Amino acid sequence: MSKRAFNFCAGPAALPEAVLLRAQSEMLDWHGKGLSVMEMSHRSDDYVAIAEKAEKDLRDLLSIPSNYKVLFLQGGASQQFAEIPLNLLPENGTADYVETGIWSKKAIEEARRFGNINVAASAKPYDYLAIPGQNEWKLTPGASYLHYASNETIGGLQFDWVPEAGDVPLVVDMSSDILSRPIDVSQYGLIYAGAQKNIGPSGLVVVIVREDLLGRARSSCPTMLDYKISADNGSMYNTPATYSWYLSGLVFEWLKEQGGVAAMEQRNKAKKDRLYGFIDNSDFYTNPISVNARSWMNVPFRLADERLDKAFLAGADARGLLNLKGHRSVGGMRASIYNALGLDAVEALVGYMAEFEKEHS
Amino acid sequence: MSKRAFNFCAGPAALPEAVLLRAQSEMLDWHGKGLSVMEMSHRSDDYVAIAEKAEKDLRDLLSIPSNYKVLFLQGGASQQFAEIPLNLLPENGTADYVETGIWSKKAIEEARRFGNINVAASAKPYDYLAIPGQNEWKLTPGASYLHYASNETIGGLQFDWVPEAGDVPLVVDMSSDILSRPIDVSQYGLIYAGAQKNIGPSGLVVVIVREDLLGRARSSCPTMLDYKISADNGSMYNTPATYSWYLSGLVFEWLKEQGGVAAMEQRNKAKKDRLYGFIDNSDFYTNPISVNARSWMNVPFRLADERLDKAFLAGADARGLLNLKGHRSVGGMRASIYNALGLDAVEALVGYMAEFEKEHS
Repeated sequence: MSKRAFNFCAGPAALPEAVLLRAQSEMLDWHGKGLSVMEMSHRSDDYVAIAEKAEKDLRDLLSIPSNYKVLFLQGGASQQFAEIPLNLLPENGTADYVETGIWSKKAIEEARRFGNINVAASAKPYDYLAIPGQNEWKLTPGASYLHYASNETIGGLQFDWVPEAGDVPLVVDMSSDILSRPIDVSQYGLIYAGAQKNIGPSGLVVVIVREDLLGRARSSCPTMLDYKISADNGSMYNTPATYSWYLSGLVFEWLKEQGGVAAMEQRNKAKKDRLYGFIDNSDFYTNPISVNARSWMNVPFRLADERLDKAFLAGADARGLLNLKGHRSVGGMRASIYNALGLDAVEALVGYMAEFEKEHS
Repeated sequence: MSKRAFNFCAGPAALPEAVLLRAQSEMLDWHGKGLSVMEMSHRSDDYVAIAEKAEKDLRDLLSIPSNYKVLFLQGGASQQFAEIPLNLLPENGTADYVETGIWSKKAIEEARRFGNINVAASAKPYDYLAIPGQNEWKLTPGASYLHYASNETIGGLQFDWVPEAGDVPLVVDMSSDILSRPIDVSQYGLIYAGAQKNIGPSGLVVVIVREDLLGRARSSCPTMLDYKISADNGSMYNTPATYSWYLSGLVFEWLKEQGGVAAMEQRNKAKKDRLYGFIDNSDFYTNPISVNARSWMNVPFRLADERLDKAFLAGADARGLLNLKGHRSVGGMRASIYNALGLDAVEALVGYMAEFEKEHS
């Protein structure tokens, strides 16, 4: 019998139990074929069908238009930080970046190694507690692209709007909020997301890219980092991360069974309303992010007295509420409540938070 | 009840059943912690212990000296084809490459995009049926490194000797024969191996690199491809392929239980002797590779009449002998007999081959 905890880890994050049960049952013998998915040639009919179904389900979930390619790559979002300028920024071009926290900052630092980067806007003057409105942004006319992170996993800062980029391709790091609610893919030139939050296990990064942006890679771009090569080869220029791709496909199937991203939006809204509502009604817990920029996925919060942090975490662990410690750069607590966690997880957390507050205030 | 086939796939390849059973049992609840390994933060104590044990077991298995770093990276051997010159070949330097088949050729093509490559030797004049002796090689004095592939997975050509490189760092693609027999790591500057043959699932590449070769990356090298960054961060500059790393660790444990690489060498020798012995004693099956360059891991063979290929494969499939079709560039058959396959698999194959020969000759 399994004893599953509520896992609030920021990533690699909780996966739906139904997905793990399915993977467990298929581990040694997939569909009676006598082998595990991870033992299949990526060129075999069975594996190609698995891979294609995963892509199709993701296309269905996000209504991805047919002029976008979906790539299943390796190296995580961090490798994309280099891959994006190597593919989309000509040596004499300029790209605009918006800085709203640690991840968008890392993207900027890496991109600067490859060309001219303009930080069009920064949340720094707002102490990373709010996102500057687009009227404050200093965009470059004719920029090669405009990059932002829709959700900052560490700071807990999320866009509840989509920047207007005009003809400039909009490039977004959606690692920690993809599939959490509906999006209009056609507003973007390129969407990328490390899998290990809302998609599947780590070691996989999904890139959704408009076809006209392919074929622009610099001559110095490693072949494995050239989007066009990946697209032309169906993400199988070399052996992809086959098992992670398969598991992601199981997550996509599960999402469809749950009612898709519209249903996820309702569920995620209920979860975040419950948690932020509880925090705001308490004198013991605080979240400082301005209300319209609060992340639905990552909820950082502080206790009234940080000397209680250890006791809070120990009590949480004892109740099977795992990985609530905040990122070292922020301190305090953080509850990541991705798709795989239900309202029951949030209720359990809130129940414990109320109990702890009562004991210590 | 599982019905496991004998899987002769060249990669992603068969894994030991004991490893899959262990992964299956731990899928939803690792060591009573209430979560799957793939749901753990890579920075958590539990996961770090898993990762460190995997590295230690690999160090034990290959007796890796302490002045070598072991990296668990993404992107496969194909990404290494770029990563190696970006790290080890100065813009004005020259690297020597030996071409013995499709994979070493791909490594050469990619490296040429980054600098001056000298093909020091090629098996082409031997129709890729033999490896030219080192006395025929044209090495560059002061080369940045000397690269070769110890085993060509597609052609079935394997070095049974180690090139002498003097002070030049020897760089080897061991994707398809690492851990198949003992090696002396100190003879190499850098060893790399895609995981999906003898290590674990795809999506992971292991790099064993001598410390003095770190810190030489070009300024144009993406951060994620800089060996020193990976080494300084314990292969966790970003989220690694955590589940693949864990599974590789289970394979390393299994290898130790089997008696390590010395025991594997005995077992692999028995397997290849049985299979090549049978082929050589038959007038129906042939393998054209010169005897001392025959791969212990990948055994290509042809039937006397290629019109029988389809019937041979169908009969094999029906008996649970899977993935015997040769690579499209070579044709015929190929039996990959990595560590995870025992002599029983080879006996089953030889039994079928004898039966098929009797029926059709």
